[in-house]
Order: sequence, then C-alpha cells, then structure tokens
Amino acid sequence: MIKPSYNKVTDEIIEYLKDICGDNYVISDRDSMESYTHDELSPVEVKGEYPEVVVKPNSTEQISRIMNFADENKIPVTPMGGKTGLAGGMIPVYGGIGLSLERLNEKIEVDEDNLMVEVDAGVTMNDLYEAVEKKGLTIPIHPTTGDSQVGGTIAANAGGESTLKHGVMRDYVKGLEVVLPNGEILKLGGKLLKNNTGYSLMHLLIGSEGTLAIFTKAILRLYPSSEESKFIIVPFESGQSAIKTVSEMIKKGIMPVGIEYLERETIIRGQQKVNENWPCDIGEATLMIFVSGKNEDEILDKAQEIMQICQQRGAVDAFLAFKSKEIDKILKIRAGIAEVIQEGNVTGHRSGDLVVPPSKIAEMIDRARTIFFESNLEGIFYAFGHAGDGNVHIEGKLPDEGIIDWKEVKEVRDKWIQEAINLGGDITGEHGIGLIKKAELRKSKSEEEMRLMEGIKNLFDPNNIMNPGKIVPRDDEVEDKYIKI
Amino acid sequence: MIKPSYNKVTDEIIEYLKDICGDNYVISDRDSMESYTHDELSPVEVKGEYPEVVVKPNSTEQISRIMNFADENKIPVTPMGGKTGLAGGMIPVYGGIGLSLERLNEKIEVDEDNLMVEVDAGVTMNDLYEAVEKKGLTIPIHPTTGDSQVGGTIAANAGGESTLKHGVMRDYVKGLEVVLPNGEILKLGGKLLKNNTGYSLMHLLIGSEGTLAIFTKAILRLYPSSEESKFIIVPFESGQSAIKTVSEMIKKGIMPVGIEYLERETIIRGQQKVNENWPCDIGEATLMIFVSGKNEDEILDKAQEIMQICQQRGAVDAFLAFKSKEIDKILKIRAGIAEVIQEGNVTGHRSGDLVVPPSKIAEMIDRARTIFFESNLEGIFYAFGHAGDGNVHIEGKLPDEGIIDWKEVKEVRDKWIQEAINLGGDITGEHGIGLIKKAELRKSKSEEEMRLMEGIKNLFDPNNIMNPGKIVPRDDEVEDKYIKI
Repeated sequence: MIKPSYNKVTDEIIEYLKDICGDNYVISDRDSMESYTHDELSPVEVKGEYPEVVVKPNSTEQISRIMNFADENKIPVTPMGGKTGLAGGMIPVYGGIGLSLERLNEKIEVDEDNLMVEVDAGVTMNDLYEAVEKKGLTIPIHPTTGDSQVGGTIAANAGGESTLKHGVMRDYVKGLEVVLPNGEILKLGGKLLKNNTGYSLMHLLIGSEGTLAIFTKAILRLYPSSEESKFIIVPFESGQSAIKTVSEMIKKGIMPVGIEYLERETIIRGQQKVNENWPCDIGEATLMIFVSGKNEDEILDKAQEIMQICQQRGAVDAFLAFKSKEIDKILKIRAGIAEVIQEGNVTGHRSGDLVVPPSKIAEMIDRARTIFFESNLEGIFYAFGHAGDGNVHIEGKLPDEGIIDWKEVKEVRDKWIQEAINLGGDITGEHGIGLIKKAELRKSKSEEEMRLMEGIKNLFDPNNIMNPGKIVPRDDEVEDKYIKI
Repeated sequence: MIKPSYNKVTDEIIEYLKDICGDNYVISDRDSMESYTHDELSPVEVKGEYPEVVVKPNSTEQISRIMNFADENKIPVTPMGGKTGLAGGMIPVYGGIGLSLERLNEKIEVDEDNLMVEVDAGVTMNDLYEAVEKKGLTIPIHPTTGDSQVGGTIAANAGGESTLKHGVMRDYVKGLEVVLPNGEILKLGGKLLKNNTGYSLMHLLIGSEGTLAIFTKAILRLYPSSEESKFIIVPFESGQSAIKTVSEMIKKGIMPVGIEYLERETIIRGQQKVNENWPCDIGEATLMIFVSGKNEDEILDKAQEIMQICQQRGAVDAFLAFKSKEIDKILKIRAGIAEVIQEGNVTGHRSGDLVVPPSKIAEMIDRARTIFFESNLEGIFYAFGHAGDGNVHIEGKLPDEGIIDWKEVKEVRDKWIQEAINLGGDITGEHGIGLIKKAELRKSKSEEEMRLMEGIKNLFDPNNIMNPGKIVPRDDEVEDKYIKI
C-alpha cells in the first residue's frame, strides 16, 4: 500500500484561492473550520479532521479552476455538501482543501413542460422540495434529512423509507454536470427519459461518494404532487410471519410506500425513552405499513385490504393511525428508538445498514441476535429494518462505562456482515462506504471487482486528489486511526 | 488509430472449443453460420460478416474458459443474443468467435417472496414473461421483440413504448452475473432493492452492448401482474398543441403507460400500406395514448379525464379504442407505418432513434422536415415519436431506383443529429451505438468523455477482444466499410 504524499496549502495558495472565490469565501482559521471537520456520524463515532482551508465557490467555473490547480499541485480536495452523511465520507483525512458546495445554490429551474428540474448541487433538499411543490410537483422520495444537498444526496445515492414504492435517488437523476479532478467539466445525460449513447458515466458516478468528481448541477425527474400518506401498525406473533406477509401484500397488487419492521423489545425501549405508549401491546414483531392514496377514502380502501391480508397471515391485531395525534405519538416513539440506539457505545457503526433480500430480514436479525449473545459482550440487542426494501439496522448497545473489548466488537460486526453476505445481502444499503467501511468493502467484493474499482478511480483521478482515503484508497493506514477496533 | 491485429481461429482452436462446449455446439461451416452474421438491421442496411466459428456454451463455467482462452490467444469474441438489435452490435467485424448465448437458457427461478426472478441470460423475453406470468407476476416493460434474450436486452438497456410509466431495463436489473474478457466471473448486486457498496459496476455494464463483459445471469425485479391497457386516439390541430398536452396530462396526476405522436402524412401512408382506415380523418398531429388500469371501469375513468384535458388544449376529436376489432385495425396501420418507413432506401439508419426532451418533439420533427426538404434529396418525409419519452423516429424515404447521393444523405443525417443535440437531446434513445453510430457518438460526447469511455474499455478489456469495433473501437477503418456515406 502506498501512502499518498501531498503538498501543503501555503499562504500563497490561499491567496490564489481567494482570487478565484473572493476573500470572504476562503477560510483558514481553525475556529471557523470546525463545522467542516465531520459529518453526522462523527465526532461521536469517528473523530473529525481539519482541512487546511475551506473554499466556497459559487460557480462551476470556479470549481473547475480550483480542481485544475489542486490537481497540478497535488493538493487533496474533499467535497462537502450538507455534511449529513453517516459514513465519514466528507472527513478531510489528508487535510488539503475542503470544497464546500453551500454557495452553489442559486438555480432551481422547474421545467413544467418536461417535468424535470435543473438544480445546483448545493441546493438543500428542503429548498428543492419547496420550489417544486410550489408548482404542484414533487420528487416522491425523501431519502435523507432536508439539510442534505442535492449533490451529496446523489453522490450517496440516498434511499430512505419509501424505496419499496419510489426507489432511490438513482431513479430520479436524468442529468449531471460534474467537474473532474483535472478541472474538465462534463455534462452527462439531459432532460431525457431514454438515453443509450455510450457507456453510462452518469450511472457510474451516482453513488461514487465524491471520490471521482464533484457534482455541480443535476437534472431530476419530477412527478405530480405527492399523494397523502397514512400508516397501519400490525403486530404479529413472530418475525417470520410478519416478513412473509410483506411479499403477499405486494403480490396482491398493493404497493405500500414503505414497510418498517420492529421487534417488541425495541419498541419497549423506544416507549420508555419518550414516555409514550405504542398503540398495541402485543406481538413479537410489528409491521408499520405506510400507505398512500389520492385521498382518505382511497387510503382507507387500501388499508382495509392490507389488514385483511395481515389477518390471514398471523397478525394478532391492527391499528390504523389516521388522527394526527396518534400519528405523532407513534412517530415520536420511533424517533425515540433511533435515539436510544445511537446513544453511548455501540457495536455497529452507529449507522450500520446491512441489506439483505427482503424475505431474509427476520432471519438476518435472528442470526445477528444469536451472534451478539454468544459473544462475550454485554448489552442490549436492537434491530429494526425497512422490511419493504431489506435494509436492516442492527445494533448491540454496550455499557456506557467500563472497559469495552473493541476487538470483540469488531469480531461481532464482522460476523454480522458475513451473515448478510451469506444471505445474499451486502454491507451497506444506503449509507455508503465512506471512511469507515473500507475494510468491510473488501469482504463484499472479489479481488477482480476491487481491481476494476481501483482502475476506475485511477482513470478519473490519476493523482488521487479527489476525496482521498475513501472507498478505494491507495493506502490503508487511514483506516485504523478512525475506526475503533 | 491502431488497427487491432488478431490471431486466426485454427483447426486446433476449434478442437479446443469442442472440448469445452461439446462437438455439437461448435460450428464452423459457412452455411450453418449464416444466421450469426447479422441482426435485424442488417443485411438490408449493413452487410453482415461471418465469424470464424460459432460456439454455444451452456454454462458460465464454459464461457469463462472460452473467454480466458480467447484473451490469452488474442482472438476476438462477439457475444450473440437474440440477434434482434438494430445497430449492428452483434456483427463480428473481425471474425473470431461468435459466442451465442442461445443454450444458456435453462434457469428461470421466480422468487415469490422477494418478487425477483433469477434468469439465465440466454432465456428469451417471451419465455421469461410466460414463466413469471404463471406466478401472477410481471415485468411491466416489453422493450423489444419477445425473441430478444434477457442478456442482450440488458446489454442494450432496452426501453420500448411504456418508458413514460414503466422506465427502461436498467430500472428492473438488481443483479448481474458477468464474465470478463479475462474469464473472471463477477456477481454484481443481488436480490436487493438498495445497495451502495462501492462503485456500481453493474450500472456501468448495463447498456455496454457486449463490449465490456458477457452477461450470463440476471436478477430482475418483478411486479404484480400487469394491468389491462387500452388506448385513445386524439387528433390535434397542430403538433405543438399535441405535445403541450402531454405534460399537462402528467401534471394532473394521470400517468399513461406511453404516448405515441403521429403526423397526418405518416398516418395516411400507413393506411395506404395496409388498406385500412384510421378512426379519425382530421388533425395535423395525433396522440395515441395508452392507458392502463385494474379493470375497464378504471381505464374508462382515466380516459375520460384525459379526453377532457385534450379538449381544453386544442384536440379536434377523440376516439377511445375499446373493442378488439378497432384496436387491431389501429395497430395494423401503425405496423404499416413502421413497414413503409423501413422499405427501400432511407436517409436514417432505418433505426434512427434520436431522443430529445419530451416537450421538444414537435420542434425536432419540424426542424428535421425543413432540413430534409432544403436538401437536394427527393423523397417522402416520415416522423413519429414516443411523445411520452422523447424518442423520435425520423426518416426520409428515398426513391427505390436511380442514383442516390449518399454523401448528401449523410449531411442530412448529421444535421438532424446536430439539431437533436442543440435541443438538449442525444443520438440514441434506445437502439444504442453498436457498429453504425460510432462516428455519431463522437458528435455527442466531449473529448474527455471519450477518453473516460476508452479508459473503461481498456480497463475491462486490455487486449480488445470483446466485441471489438463497437462503441469505442481502437480503429476507425471498420466504420466506412459498413456505413453508406
């Protein structure tokens, strides 16, 4: 493994960057750079790292000049969007330039004739939703927090809870403008629903997490304004019967927006956390089924059909959350579950998001539970998953104090990953590889796949200046420093 | 440009291939190889070419051995599926091995719990539909003739008429097994709805037209059985008002399966060809709108809503085709249009499938018409398009006899392409680049994009044995031999 060597950002370089971006948009004092050191995973899980300088260009042109300069001078560049990631993908591990897209946020051009929007990469998802909804249109997925930026959301190919019905970001991206490490600007795709003109560089770049190019603009497909959505809580006697019901439902032609899978123990902890009561107090496993429709009547019709199917498959009750008070209470408990899982020391990456074929969720959780309790670790086991799309969040919550055997934690995590792969799954459904799952990536991919990925990285970024240390780094020494083992 | 040099297929090599595939599945006599010389574009438009030998492996293992051998011995390999392509993508221009997937057609494993199917690449789309429909499931797009094979359909990222609502093949592929030119077998993706584990080699390979790897298996997402579908014929006073209606419709929340755009002159020729009458005899431009629903009542409701919108936007009549006799008649005329366009000498590639933003279809057709009639060519101008997805088929039908100025034909074609690009479009919406659009690809892509595509080709196929002469060839001399200029 070769450790990359980079040049330092000198005062002269800072002056040059100011020439490009303007004096106010180049920051190099440490205090002002703190928020550019970590995403939402860190600093709790992974320590942050300071860039040498933060630049805030506001045009593709400026970005092109910065990249070209950085490439010629061997200075690493880490693109920074909303910093809402959960894999440390924007931590500038080699210092260098932190390139924040926050000022590239002017253009949101809704094209009502083509039902597309052309948008600057630094626009937040919230601002984008607002702008398209004003025109009676929508992007039906809400894959991340609204503070994430369009570019980052595409770079991470974010998914979210409604993947079952509405897919992931990749499904909405029709065009991308990107700046390559050498400063070249590429315009890929367009306002086109079909395009088979050569290899799809666009689809290669989607999900590349800022390691191949900086995204500067995107063209996204729009849909008529979103339907209303309610949800149904259905407890089952066992996890297996809950999971089996999911495909039954879809086969009958009902396509819920999303389906969450929750286990009894997990719900109880969530209740305690926020001091609220879950509507049903029975069942080992519960499905929370999001149903959408044009109006309440249509939703009610679908809900009744769903509840009928569930009853035939071993549901022990069903609760339709229609009133906003009920809905709020349930969502509060669900947020409580997420919170309680993320507190203190945990076995996973706090953002572990293994993915398995949807039918294997209950089995995956059972196996993970067994592995956890067979280890020498002490703690509470939590699991919940997007039953609709196979994404599972598994966590062993460890004691807040005392000595934790991090080597054993890593062993447990490795075994979980191996089980996911054995079940036909993979290591990350939506959060991505970033900084923290590089070693794990090698468990999922063959040597030949790694060779191709490394070759692609080398083709786009021969000087390895583009978000180095992520996905397919040329060194491995970065790893240990950031991951507790 | 370097002209590739390859080794010849000797008797000894044929013996070796027989060892791998069995004596009956290696063919080298010329008569038996005729059907492996061309796809559906050729031999009318582009002359076919004989491989030196055709092999018919029936396992991934055999394909891996063949590829590894070919790579080490510098023998070109051209993968051959259903040979239903329209861009000459399977013509073995350097001879070598024609690798037919026709015997890799055993496995069609429907997974009803995950709503996925795992299928051998050589299975025809017809066989696949039949197998999944038996289980009450479907793949809602029918992108090509049913004789095309699953692997080829993915390699071409086929689309079809229902893209507006149901997308293209890429949207259904969740997993791929492929054999690289060096014989390595990669298993990409899986029965997973979300997967962000490293760069998506799978999405890079989709649409790569057999130039990077041979597809051996695919995992496709399934949906509940298809809804019924009918169509509405709506004539408009002008092309522009017809096209403007399309986005209006979609914005109102109605998502037709597909929308075809037909001009008066084109319909008349189609009528004459098959000697039938189109239901409405008025309007300069006509939309043919495919509507789906769970039953006839739902379709009728949607149809009424659509017709109302059309009336408000300048439709001069509307005809709902509900009876099978009416439907058959209309489809017959439509087939007649396709036939009449493809006969004799034409300006396009007989398969020209420019794509523009959907709102620009009428403008694209107008500009193309003007270009055609301003040229010195004599003939009839035809145009129709998938108004829903922006794919337009434009053709100038030239006299069957007499001398045709092919240089002028090429100029017209080049101008059409330039107009499509000017309108934000691209050169091929669904048929792909193949053998015949390599020169045109360079009009659409920047030098840097070409460098990246060539780099990707080189990374996957350093010895250039994999379907050489297509998309990004290392030589250009192949072109002239196959394209009329």
